[in-house]
Amino acid sequence: MRAATYIGNSTVEVTTRDPRAPGAGEVQIEVAYTGICGTDLHVLHGSMDARVTLPAVLGHEMSGRIAVVGEGVEDWAVGDPVTVMPLDWCGRCPACRAGHQHICQNLDFIGIDSPGSLQGRWNVPAHVLVRLPESLRLDHAALVEPVAVSVHDVRRSELRPGEKAVVIGGGPIGVLIATTARHLGADVVVVELDAGRRRMIQELGFEVLDPSAQDQVEWVEEWTGGAGADVVFEVSGAAAAVLGATALAKVRGRLVVVAIHPQPRPVDLQRVFWRELTIVGARVYERADFETAVDMLAAGAVPAEQLITAILPLAETADAFDKLASGQAMKVLIDCQAGAE
Amino acid sequence: MRAATYIGNSTVEVTTRDPRAPGAGEVQIEVAYTGICGTDLHVLHGSMDARVTLPAVLGHEMSGRIAVVGEGVEDWAVGDPVTVMPLDWCGRCPACRAGHQHICQNLDFIGIDSPGSLQGRWNVPAHVLVRLPESLRLDHAALVEPVAVSVHDVRRSELRPGEKAVVIGGGPIGVLIATTARHLGADVVVVELDAGRRRMIQELGFEVLDPSAQDQVEWVEEWTGGAGADVVFEVSGAAAAVLGATALAKVRGRLVVVAIHPQPRPVDLQRVFWRELTIVGARVYERADFETAVDMLAAGAVPAEQLITAILPLAETADAFDKLASGQAMKVLIDCQAGAE
Ligand SMILES: [Zn+2]
Ligand SMILES: [Zn+2]
Ligand SMILES: [Zn+2]
Ligand SMILES: [Zn+2]
Repeated sequence: MRAATYIGNSTVEVTTRDPRAPGAGEVQIEVAYTGICGTDLHVLHGSMDARVTLPAVLGHEMSGRIAVVGEGVEDWAVGDPVTVMPLDWCGRCPACRAGHQHICQNLDFIGIDSPGSLQGRWNVPAHVLVRLPESLRLDHAALVEPVAVSVHDVRRSELRPGEKAVVIGGGPIGVLIATTARHLGADVVVVELDAGRRRMIQELGFEVLDPSAQDQVEWVEEWTGGAGADVVFEVSGAAAAVLGATALAKVRGRLVVVAIHPQPRPVDLQRVFWRELTIVGARVYERADFETAVDMLAAGAVPAEQLITAILPLAETADAFDKLASGQAMKVLIDCQAGAE
Repeated sequence: MRAATYIGNSTVEVTTRDPRAPGAGEVQIEVAYTGICGTDLHVLHGSMDARVTLPAVLGHEMSGRIAVVGEGVEDWAVGDPVTVMPLDWCGRCPACRAGHQHICQNLDFIGIDSPGSLQGRWNVPAHVLVRLPESLRLDHAALVEPVAVSVHDVRRSELRPGEKAVVIGGGPIGVLIATTARHLGADVVVVELDAGRRRMIQELGFEVLDPSAQDQVEWVEEWTGGAGADVVFEVSGAAAAVLGATALAKVRGRLVVVAIHPQPRPVDLQRVFWRELTIVGARVYERADFETAVDMLAAGAVPAEQLITAILPLAETADAFDKLASGQAMKVLIDCQAGAE
C-alpha cells in the first residue's frame, strides 16, 4: 500500500509500505478520501515538529470502509462505511474525569500525535469509529470532521434560532460555522477581507462584509437595531479581529475563540466588563458533535459540492498542499483509494 | 442640611444647603452612613469628569431611614430602614428590553451620573429602595452595595459548593468576593502583593498567596491535584494578573473580569482555546444580588466589623478620601447623621 508522509523540511513524500494487520481492538480501514486543512499545513511547515514523529503520516479528516476487523471488536463489519473522530484520550486526567475527554490533558490527536489517514490502509482503535449512512457519498463524508468542529463551536456559543451571529474570517471553518449557524435558524454575516472568498461565500447565500470598505461596528449596529450581535465567532486568528470583536457584541453577547492565537492578544476587557460579555474557547468536538455533523451532511445541509475545491490522487499530495497554501481553495481532498494495493 | 461635594481639582467641600422636598414617586432619606470606594476616588481624581456635573454630591454605598414620603409612593413609611440600589435605567434600550436593566445602555448610576448620598438628606425615586431588617446595624448596612457587587461576581462565575476559587487582588471587593465564595461553600485563596493586606485577609481565615514569593501556577496545581482552579476572579486590574489568570484555571474553568481595565490587555487566547475556558464580565448587580447581600449581612456572614477601618463625620470627608487613597484602609464610612439638620 502507499502512504503520504511528512519527512521534515516542508516535504511530503509518497512511499510504499506493507500494511500491518490490525491489533486487538483495532480495525483496518480502506481509506477513501482524506481532507487536508490548516493544521496539516502547520505540521508540514514545521510548527509542530515537537509533537510529530518523522516520517509522519498526516490526515485526520477522512472517510472509508472497514477492510479488516481485529480481535475482540464487536458491532463493526467488513464493508461498513465509517469516519473517525481522531481523539484518543487517557481517561485518567482531571479533564477526563470531569467528563471533558476531548480536552484530555494527555490527548493523542490522531493524525498529528500518531499516524493519520493519508494512506491506503489505516489501523485505528475501534472506539474512535463513527458510523456513516450508506446514502452519504464518501467524498462528502470526508467533511464530517471539519463540520463537527463547526457544530462544536456553535454549540459552545449557545446560539439560538432567530439570533444574529457574526463570523470573522471566511476560510473553511468560518464558512462551516456560518452554515451550521444558519442551519440552526440564526441570521449570519461573514466578515472576510479577501474578495474572492467573499464572492464564493455570497454564492452560498450568506451576507458578507468587507471590513476594509465598511465600518463593521456601524453595520452590525444597524443590522441589530442598536443592540449588537448575539454571538461573534473569531475564526481569523488576527489580532485586530480580536480587538474589534468585542465591539460587535450585544449586552451579554458571546464571543467564541475558534482560531489559534500563538501570541497573547490585546482584548478590550473594559467592554467585556461593561457589557457583561462572555468569551469562550472552543476546541475540537465531542461525539455528539460528530453525530450531528454526519446528520447534517446526510441531510444535504452542508454545501459539500461547492466547498470541495479539488480532489487529487494520493500521488499528488504535495501539489494538494501547495493548492491549499495558496489560500484560494476551500477544501482539498486526497483520493486514497488507489493507495490500498 | 449639609452635603460633601466634589468641586473639581481633586477637591471635596462640605457646604450647607436647604433640603428639597421629595417629588412625586420619590422619598427623602435621612442618610445614616455612606461608604466611599475606589470609584469615588476615580471621580475625585477627575477620571470621570465627562460624566459628573459640578458641584457633584458623591456616594452610592449607604444606609438610612426614610424621613419624608413623596406623593404616590406606596409600601414605604417614615422611619423604614433602607439602602438604595443606585441604578436608574431607561427601560427602552435593547439591554433593558432583554431583561438586563443593570447594564442599560443609558444607565444613570446614582452617585456619579446624578447626586449621591454624601449628604444629610437625600431624595431618590422609591423604585431604587431596598428594605433593611431592623436587626441590621446601619453602619454594617452601608456595606450592602459592595457585598452585592461580590454576590453578582460570584453568581456570574457559576461557582458551586466544593469548588476551588482564586481571587486575584485582596482589596475590599476581592475580600468580599472571597467572603461570598466561602459562604457558598467554596474553597478560596486570595492572591495579594501587599503584606499588610495579606495579614488582614489571613486574619479573616482565608488562605493567601504572595505571587512575588511563590509560583502561583505551581501552588494552584498542587492545591487542585493537577486540575487547576474552577474559577478565577480578576480583581486587581493589573495587566500581569490578566496574563497569569488563564494559567490558573482548569479545563472548562471560568475567569471573571471584575476589575476595570482602561487599556486592552494581552490575554492568552491560546490557553482559552486549549482548555475551553470561559471569560465573563461582571458589572454591578441585579436586585436579587442586593437582597442576597442584605441577607448575608443580617446573618453575620460578612465580617463587617473587621472590614470597616474607620468611620468619619461628614465634615471630615476629605480626610476620609485621603485615608482611602493611602491603600491601607478596607472600608471607610462617612457618618452623615449630623448633616441632616
Ligand atoms: Zn483539520
Ligand atoms: Zn485525559
Ligand atoms: Zn462603590
Ligand atoms: Zn436601558
